Amino acid sequence: MPYNGKLIENAAGRMVPTDVNSTAAVPFQGVGKYRPSGRKAAPSIASCNDYPKSGNKIVPDLKTALVNAGIKDGMTISTHHHFRNGDLVANQIFAAAAELGVKDLMWFPSASFPCHAPVIEHMKTGVVHHIEGSMNGPLGDYCTSGQMKGLGVLRSHGGRYQAVQDGEIHIDIAVIAAPTADPFGNANGVNGPSACGSLGFALADSQYADHVIVVTDNLVNFPCVPWQIQGNYVDSVVVMDKIGEPSKIVSGTTEITKSPDRLLIAELTAQFVREAGILRDGFSFQAGAGGTALSFAIFLKDMMKEMGIKARFIRGGSTRYLVEMLEQGLTDYILDGQTFDLDGVRSMRDNPRHVSTSPFTSYNYHGKGNFASMVDVVVLGATEVDINFNANVVTHSDGRLLHGIGGWQNCLFSKCTILPIPSFRDRIPVIVDRVTTLCGPGELIDVIVTERGIVINPQRQDLLDAVTKSSLPIRSITELKHEIEAICGGAPAAPSLGEEIVAVVKWVDGTVLDSIRRVL
Amino acid sequence: MPYNGKLIENAAGRMVPTDVNSTAAVPFQGVGKYRPSGRKAAPSIASCNDYPKSGNKIVPDLKTALVNAGIKDGMTISTHHHFRNGDLVANQIFAAAAELGVKDLMWFPSASFPCHAPVIEHMKTGVVHHIEGSMNGPLGDYCTSGQMKGLGVLRSHGGRYQAVQDGEIHIDIAVIAAPTADPFGNANGVNGPSACGSLGFALADSQYADHVIVVTDNLVNFPCVPWQIQGNYVDSVVVMDKIGEPSKIVSGTTEITKSPDRLLIAELTAQFVREAGILRDGFSFQAGAGGTALSFAIFLKDMMKEMGIKARFIRGGSTRYLVEMLEQGLTDYILDGQTFDLDGVRSMRDNPRHVSTSPFTSYNYHGKGNFASMVDVVVLGATEVDINFNANVVTHSDGRLLHGIGGWQNCLFSKCTILPIPSFRDRIPVIVDRVTTLCGPGELIDVIVTERGIVINPQRQDLLDAVTKSSLPIRSITELKHEIEAICGGAPAAPSLGEEIVAVVKWVDGTVLDSIRRVL
Repeated sequence: MPYNGKLIENAAGRMVPTDVNSTAAVPFQGVGKYRPSGRKAAPSIASCNDYPKSGNKIVPDLKTALVNAGIKDGMTISTHHHFRNGDLVANQIFAAAAELGVKDLMWFPSASFPCHAPVIEHMKTGVVHHIEGSMNGPLGDYCTSGQMKGLGVLRSHGGRYQAVQDGEIHIDIAVIAAPTADPFGNANGVNGPSACGSLGFALADSQYADHVIVVTDNLVNFPCVPWQIQGNYVDSVVVMDKIGEPSKIVSGTTEITKSPDRLLIAELTAQFVREAGILRDGFSFQAGAGGTALSFAIFLKDMMKEMGIKARFIRGGSTRYLVEMLEQGLTDYILDGQTFDLDGVRSMRDNPRHVSTSPFTSYNYHGKGNFASMVDVVVLGATEVDINFNANVVTHSDGRLLHGIGGWQNCLFSKCTILPIPSFRDRIPVIVDRVTTLCGPGELIDVIVTERGIVINPQRQDLLDAVTKSSLPIRSITELKHEIEAICGGAPAAPSLGEEIVAVVKWVDGTVLDSIRRVL
Repeated sequence: MPYNGKLIENAAGRMVPTDVNSTAAVPFQGVGKYRPSGRKAAPSIASCNDYPKSGNKIVPDLKTALVNAGIKDGMTISTHHHFRNGDLVANQIFAAAAELGVKDLMWFPSASFPCHAPVIEHMKTGVVHHIEGSMNGPLGDYCTSGQMKGLGVLRSHGGRYQAVQDGEIHIDIAVIAAPTADPFGNANGVNGPSACGSLGFALADSQYADHVIVVTDNLVNFPCVPWQIQGNYVDSVVVMDKIGEPSKIVSGTTEITKSPDRLLIAELTAQFVREAGILRDGFSFQAGAGGTALSFAIFLKDMMKEMGIKARFIRGGSTRYLVEMLEQGLTDYILDGQTFDLDGVRSMRDNPRHVSTSPFTSYNYHGKGNFASMVDVVVLGATEVDINFNANVVTHSDGRLLHGIGGWQNCLFSKCTILPIPSFRDRIPVIVDRVTTLCGPGELIDVIVTERGIVINPQRQDLLDAVTKSSLPIRSITELKHEIEAICGGAPAAPSLGEEIVAVVKWVDGTVLDSIRRVL
């Protein structure tokens, strides 16, 4: 049921629940303010006594594996989303659970996609109680409609690792779909007909879950090399005909934009990076797989060639555009958490300079540092940004939850975070007084680039100074906002929301950053 | 002080202490009989708040790093032994500790070597209280002389990982000497002037220690690829001129034997492997770096070529002989925990089929299986074997502790464990009534090969049957023992030992397998 309990105002001025799915929750205390105490989760000690000496952990089918894992009411089942909208495994888990008469499972995916819409039926029949994890599309919509029994909990990739590592989430059974595996459970994503690149989103699951099931459609003799997932963490292996739809595993968003406005945004972003002095030999950047981000990378590439400079590393999600940069010697390394096309998969498989990363190395805020803060410039999307530079990436202006957080929050810790966004979408302004859902505190968002000009966060005087003599169209946020509202005929209408809370957004440190309310 | 407390007889009939260095100890209960309970060690939760956003964790020197780590009396300091007798770092740690006036440290190396003899002085002055870890040479001798203040605790590579993972040993400060590292603490052993191959012996230390210091003489810009040690576990990085003597990093025992007796033993061993039907396409083997083991591998290689077969994998310690087999297509993979020569280092660096392993993947008995039990045949050394096939690998017949266990105990779980050993050394029989120190229970030792014939453990009727029609010189152990004693003029003299216990040998599951007494 949606949450109607006690709320408390957090350091971002947002009202958040004091407990989330019956567990006490810490309200957001400000960036870098919350100090964790205690110790990491401690999995049970296993013994080789209990595993076959032959190393052969194959069981006949997924249902048997779930039964062997002791599946029962109320358990938490995790999956990864490296197959994106081509995943064929998660639905089978819950179909098997339904056949077994199991109820009230919590599904803990690293992300869910439209292909997982059948889980809505399982929520209606009570097999699945609720979902904690990114909900892209229909599952998010179902959540904001107020029908889910528990609260949705949205975490970044790093936040998901942190939650498992810190014991906020205990995974009873992890099911890891693997494009290649051996009978011992060593597994990777770079080989086989369903190759998806990395399996990093399942790393925490393998390390901390009580019971780990690897599911593959490409069984090889021991050893499966590389072993992105280590068989020493795995309890059983299931072989099935097909674990993913290859055509849907690669993302649909890996084409450069053809929109003149978005091309302009991409070019302005690249120009800003150059004018601000970020573009220099040995620099690093991260851009996603959206059309604008890809176009940005291409503009950047041309500038790098012109300047005769080379990046030290580029962060993936990788595409053929990044792979080309690696192969043309424009970067020493690609450090890559997920591959978005088959060139990315091939490169990660064959090129030792295309390195698979994980949410632990890249994003976990409760580690001894992570990679994200070392990136010189990162380019991210947003559904809304407000006049204090706070940004939203999960809900639309109508309040519907349609996107996950991904690595977005984690990337905000880069040395320069840029949001290249159109100033309006469907005649709805993107720059608003107050974002519907707070996903990223404004103090971490440095630059907004629109087709109508560039806004620099006043807290970044260094960046303002750096471009003061440039010809870049630098604007103030209020000025830009007024201009956009004049075009669109005013500020966007407030979404029609109920009082009940249906989901929360966690910050990278596990505290509660904002609440998401039921859409009326 | 040596232990004079309560003893209890364990399942192997050995008297062992009920507590070891003031911690209650479980006596050995039989192979596969002890069932661990409880949960793994749980390190403190860290936060990126406490680490530089730049990723630069460099501190000026080792002493500063130790001070920053809060070094104080009674702490446990760990090191790895990938540099073997060429290590230049461990002695500097204790020299710094002495300068800081710190006392009663416990040194927890993965192994110590003659180059670490200066630690004896630190034990005499009280800087170091005692050592838990393999003691090769003078430190072992010091231990059995009865002068060490605590009990030596000998663990296998897998047992060391198990002890850290299970929380039997809490490492306060791990110092990881790394041939290449970046300022974030990512590190590897395959690059740089002190390249040693893998850093796997330091894996548990990096994962579980409170404070992790990486020491390197080859600093590279982030990212150091591959990152065998992950910077996300590292607190600080120290750069110094030289961390190891390259000429001593590679083992001195990587030449094939010239002794006619040992060549015969090696050849008989290879013949046994063939006649027993183990040598077939897709098989696997492990042999160490000693002269006999290397010669065995060469005989095996010739047989494989003759038979037109290929191994699926070979376990290292690798040498140029194994690298040649990989490069000639005689094996799909080398799975390698440590490289014994520069060809091994080169191959691990450049050949994706030469895979770095760790005590976690290979040997940890408290995992969900490990690699050791999947190996078809393993060839190991021994100082003594008794008529029940029990073997000793740490003490000599005079009782002096001169060798570590290495991966020896872990490898006993292979499908066929062979000890190719000379029947006597210095006119002292190697086959005895009862081994001075029990390191490996006889039920796990399948075959003994000497220059005077081959003995098969009567528990392995399958192996007896397999070679029954061969021309191999199969003998019984008592028959062989009598023959050797006739040559040597009788059984070896009993060592002259005191009652006090100076060290214990742990089994792979953390239980106490045997005690080592003071040499009078």
